[in-house]
Amino acid sequence: MASADTLLGIDWGTSNRRAYLMQRGGAVLASHHDDQGLLAVQGKFAESLAALRAAMRVDPQVPVVMSGMVGSASGWQEVPYLDASVPLAQLARHLAPVAGHPGCAIVPGYCRRVDGVDVMRGEETQLLGAMALGIGEGWIVLPGTHSKWVQVREGGITELATFMTGELFALLGTSGTLAGMMAQGEDDEQAFCDGLDEARRGKPLSNALFGVRARVVAGVMPARFARSFLSGLLIGTEFVNARQQQGAITVIASKALSSRYASAAGRFGLQARIADPDEVFCAALAQIFTTAFRKDQP
Amino acid sequence: MASADTLLGIDWGTSNRRAYLMQRGGAVLASHHDDQGLLAVQGKFAESLAALRAAMRVDPQVPVVMSGMVGSASGWQEVPYLDASVPLAQLARHLAPVAGHPGCAIVPGYCRRVDGVDVMRGEETQLLGAMALGIGEGWIVLPGTHSKWVQVREGGITELATFMTGELFALLGTSGTLAGMMAQGEDDEQAFCDGLDEARRGKPLSNALFGVRARVVAGVMPARFARSFLSGLLIGTEFVNARQQQGAITVIASKALSSRYASAAGRFGLQARIADPDEVFCAALAQIFTTAFRKDQP
Repeated sequence: MASADTLLGIDWGTSNRRAYLMQRGGAVLASHHDDQGLLAVQGKFAESLAALRAAMRVDPQVPVVMSGMVGSASGWQEVPYLDASVPLAQLARHLAPVAGHPGCAIVPGYCRRVDGVDVMRGEETQLLGAMALGIGEGWIVLPGTHSKWVQVREGGITELATFMTGELFALLGTSGTLAGMMAQGEDDEQAFCDGLDEARRGKPLSNALFGVRARVVAGVMPARFARSFLSGLLIGTEFVNARQQQGAITVIASKALSSRYASAAGRFGLQARIADPDEVFCAALAQIFTTAFRKDQP
Repeated sequence: MASADTLLGIDWGTSNRRAYLMQRGGAVLASHHDDQGLLAVQGKFAESLAALRAAMRVDPQVPVVMSGMVGSASGWQEVPYLDASVPLAQLARHLAPVAGHPGCAIVPGYCRRVDGVDVMRGEETQLLGAMALGIGEGWIVLPGTHSKWVQVREGGITELATFMTGELFALLGTSGTLAGMMAQGEDDEQAFCDGLDEARRGKPLSNALFGVRARVVAGVMPARFARSFLSGLLIGTEFVNARQQQGAITVIASKALSSRYASAAGRFGLQARIADPDEVFCAALAQIFTTAFRKDQP
């Protein structure tokens, strides 16, 4: 890649976009968050990037590194997944140039094909950032619509499990048997913990989900607690496989989500170390800057 | 209950209604199926019953026994659940008269409060019918929107687990990550079996659901198979707890559903005995007729 004094890094997802203008050395000169994710952009990536550059006053000569769903089949350009055997430290060597847009590159996602198939796009960049910050070993949890649990050992991905936690919570709150109860929802810490405990029993989730309704119609739980109980049940389900683990997990998430995961971790006897996603992304960007855009390169 | 020569039995659910006019002795004189479930009736149960009687030419003096969601909080009259310790054979003694409508009664559902909470309404009548037909012992499976797995021992409910199988399949096909893939769906037996095998691995369902997407985006499975794979995954999830079982299960379901469950049972090393829900309901009705409407009663 060409030499550069600044780099524009974009975490470009399905719903949101976060951009950071970084100076060589790692200082963030400007940042921009908006809702121009894939759904909003509707395929007009070059135009959307031009508008972003204009908004951030970034020269078109500044190289751009993008991660996330922008590299998926419904993104700007589909970038093949790296196999999980490729060390995270080599990520910057595998940046995929965007055809017809010199200076623009996409970070590839990872695919793991052991005991089934699982994939990530965007989270690999977070993992690289966590490594750079010295918190990238062990279980890294990236909660969200599709929560990722990644085990990293010596800089390599050794386990990967994605849970449809956020998506199921949204779907069940929109229609079906539980939606009416969830609409009445209020945040209740005890109901959340009850949901965690129900998850710990290890029933199949399709069974435990009906249990939310059964508790309400049998008068065991007020309907207004269904929302928090379900949140605990879905988040707790992520922890069930991790309950044999010892020690700490690292949760990379915004404050609201990370506090729920920290609370769940405690319930399952784990320590949770919390990291801020923006900070982690910028650490990854600085790492990529150093590795892929060396100062002495032509 | 009063003596009677005929009895009108109604399986009155959320979406559908099935009615049978039965003669003492068990002969079915007339039957009527329609879509006037709770959602369509919108609270006007008396009017709807009057229209049903007119359509079937049933005298208003003929007693009516109803089962299903008609006895729920959103039904005609909420009937408290029986505790699972009450033997099924005593069901007819617990018919709940509908206030203000002499001759109309509702069969109570069951609630089991062991290791969580689970409930049924309507299925208890099917279980009574299965007992009358001599197929009511062991694991009885009643597939559907909310699939019930009930273990019956010596006429008593010893296990009850409800799975949101049909509801999750519908929700995931309507919106969210998998909906687009499911819309392309075609029936594929191998993909269904692959889904069953994935269920057998025992991963948390929220994780296995993402695996459907991962298989497609990683090019391991064509998108058009996602629908059948998901069907196998959700149905297979019901069997995971039963895999330690030996021998046979009884599946009370329509032909389309029962063949899937029979196929799943085979994959999990179980025999499936299939029973027709209409036949089973009529056997229950005949049983209730004999027990609750004795000829010698005033």
